[in-house]
Amino acid sequence: MSFVPIRKILDGCCEDQKVALRGWVYRKREGKQTVFLIIRDSSGIIQCPVKKESKAWSQAEKVTIESSLTLEGTVKKDTRAPGGWEIVTEKISIIGLAELFPITKSQSEEFLRDVRHLWLRSRRMNLVMKVRSEVQRFTHEFFKRQEFVEVSPPMFITSACEGGSTLFGLKYFDQNMYLTQSAQLYLEILIYSLEKVYCVAPSFRAEKSRTIRHLTEYWHIEAEQAFADMKDLMLLEEELMAYICRRTVESCKREFEELAADISKLASVKTPFPKITYTEAIEKLNAKQFKIEWGDDLGYEEEKALADNFGKPFFIHDYPKQIQAFYCKTPKDNPQLAMSTDMLVPRIGEISTGGAREDDKEKLVARLKEMGLREKDYDWYIDLRRYGTVPHVGFGMGLERLLTWMLDLENIIDAIPFPRTVRRFYP
Amino acid sequence: MSFVPIRKILDGCCEDQKVALRGWVYRKREGKQTVFLIIRDSSGIIQCPVKKESKAWSQAEKVTIESSLTLEGTVKKDTRAPGGWEIVTEKISIIGLAELFPITKSQSEEFLRDVRHLWLRSRRMNLVMKVRSEVQRFTHEFFKRQEFVEVSPPMFITSACEGGSTLFGLKYFDQNMYLTQSAQLYLEILIYSLEKVYCVAPSFRAEKSRTIRHLTEYWHIEAEQAFADMKDLMLLEEELMAYICRRTVESCKREFEELAADISKLASVKTPFPKITYTEAIEKLNAKQFKIEWGDDLGYEEEKALADNFGKPFFIHDYPKQIQAFYCKTPKDNPQLAMSTDMLVPRIGEISTGGAREDDKEKLVARLKEMGLREKDYDWYIDLRRYGTVPHVGFGMGLERLLTWMLDLENIIDAIPFPRTVRRFYP
Repeated sequence: MSFVPIRKILDGCCEDQKVALRGWVYRKREGKQTVFLIIRDSSGIIQCPVKKESKAWSQAEKVTIESSLTLEGTVKKDTRAPGGWEIVTEKISIIGLAELFPITKSQSEEFLRDVRHLWLRSRRMNLVMKVRSEVQRFTHEFFKRQEFVEVSPPMFITSACEGGSTLFGLKYFDQNMYLTQSAQLYLEILIYSLEKVYCVAPSFRAEKSRTIRHLTEYWHIEAEQAFADMKDLMLLEEELMAYICRRTVESCKREFEELAADISKLASVKTPFPKITYTEAIEKLNAKQFKIEWGDDLGYEEEKALADNFGKPFFIHDYPKQIQAFYCKTPKDNPQLAMSTDMLVPRIGEISTGGAREDDKEKLVARLKEMGLREKDYDWYIDLRRYGTVPHVGFGMGLERLLTWMLDLENIIDAIPFPRTVRRFYP
Repeated sequence: MSFVPIRKILDGCCEDQKVALRGWVYRKREGKQTVFLIIRDSSGIIQCPVKKESKAWSQAEKVTIESSLTLEGTVKKDTRAPGGWEIVTEKISIIGLAELFPITKSQSEEFLRDVRHLWLRSRRMNLVMKVRSEVQRFTHEFFKRQEFVEVSPPMFITSACEGGSTLFGLKYFDQNMYLTQSAQLYLEILIYSLEKVYCVAPSFRAEKSRTIRHLTEYWHIEAEQAFADMKDLMLLEEELMAYICRRTVESCKREFEELAADISKLASVKTPFPKITYTEAIEKLNAKQFKIEWGDDLGYEEEKALADNFGKPFFIHDYPKQIQAFYCKTPKDNPQLAMSTDMLVPRIGEISTGGAREDDKEKLVARLKEMGLREKDYDWYIDLRRYGTVPHVGFGMGLERLLTWMLDLENIIDAIPFPRTVRRFYP
């Protein structure tokens, strides 16, 4: 027996034909003359009425929410049915009869997180995970077209990328090691061989932040490019973003519709993006009654205020050196600045951070000292400037932050199947 | 100025034309009348003679191995030059003059591992990393064509997948957690929503094995499929393997040639693969003077002997239940067996392991108890059988083992840019 995906039936493949389905009972409504089953499979949901006179009646009565089954019947157009189609059911074979399913209609967010392994079956999570998969695909597609080579950074690292306060440590046999929070320094190694490299890989941050935009374990889209400057960097980032948005609009229209998410926002993403300097950002914020001084870090509230004002993705660049990492390059004409840039989006704020990396060995070493970091901990990193240094840039973008913005998710935890936060790490 | 990739010149794009290159000095040979520079970029290497009368002479004399530079000159066909082409050099601009490069001609393997961050610049590692990138791409391509959804499994897990002896533990705020060694149990959750899922993600094993096929951190291609049996599983695995091999033959011919790796081996990979039972494997081994009894686990030596004999990828299936994990399904007609299967390749042995997962709740719980595992540690996993269980199968394949076989690498550490083994974890 060959089974038809529900999506195909909803697309009108099989009017008045006999079909076989395979899936799970999503909803059940019992009438005296008819049992209405809503059946789900990976592709969609469809109404399957079972009439009392049908041979399937006893099975339809017996079957419980989330039971797995195969079902045979005739496809009928019916404007009253959700999706416009239904299957008048003639036969049901139960595969796995489910015990009483714990998720019912109006359950708390907290409970749904407790039973994440079951909640992932919801139509909502099914759709979000499909969009996530597509966004990953388009990311690879974009970088391939741009002739970047995909590489795999290490998860176990010996020294910290940006200081150690938010690193997870662990015992590695007899050594103390850490989990990576960015592939950047390793991608920098690889540009000396491959010039343009990227990765999509886990990163870890031991931050106790409990916000809608923090995970302790997230997937990081990172890229590094040799012989490139800030202009190239912002172009690369905005083109990536525009490419992902455009391809998602083409590919995931239905998912967005069913999720009631605003796809027009993605369609309107066009290059070039607006770009403001950090100094301009501070001015804008002070004009909005924020009390913030030049040199202060932008927090979530500040980022959100700026981003909501733009209403679309944009860049802030040229941050004060004092709030940036040791590897940031300084512009020749202004030693107070760092050649770094963040991309921000409405509601979420920062979704990517990048910049030009200091390529002068002496300046890099001076900066390490200035920041109280030990030169010998960065020995191999300094080697990259010792042997054939080149100007280069790179960035990291949080895949889940990107998805949270794209899909209008209330919380970043829904952008990943098994979210890890300070309080949540099960299942 | 626009720069031409060396590959294009070697392909004959620019005979007798003026071109500009950008790259690093790979080799240097000094004569009285001519300095021969071999320049590398990400795409290839080319000989660039600089004559004494050239304006570039003083720069050519000054430049050191691994210095970065731009170079201008005229492309000439020359059968004596490696690759058949050279660039008669007229101008050199040094970007970063390198200090004395520590890697010279005949260095020990150990030293090259110490300076991995520099050794990655070698032509050999450049080529291997490119093939790796392509194999990753073809993996995604294959699963997309088979309508699998890419998902991201968690790295932090609370309970062990196959017992805890080889898990890395760590402190997660106030909790004890582990790093995943397989996404399998999480992929099983997701098939109840998406039916066919896969991932390419890191896995971790705290094994002290010092062999040519073990890493403590490796990339794991894993897939799980609902409503499928052992036949479907082996078909999926062999089609994945054949697809990757065929696409790699098309795409990486040059890389294989330059690496002097045997690509014909890949071209000859055709489905269906040979399949033998564990029982047959034991018989074959005993016929080869191995002393092994039914019920014993196959070690590297046994796997290698069998695999070298086949000379190509093949499956061993139907292992004794006693040497398999708790989640393995048992065939109805033989409770001593587990419906599991490994794929083996010459020289490496096992590169994938998979099977049918026990979908009956009672049998699963009985098996947990039998193996001394606590039911409550697997509560959410048992839920998958409680609510709409379905027959399903899955497998995991080590990306680096696959590459080690494909590329005839002597050691698995060269299949990943930053290998992590018991002794190696730097840089």
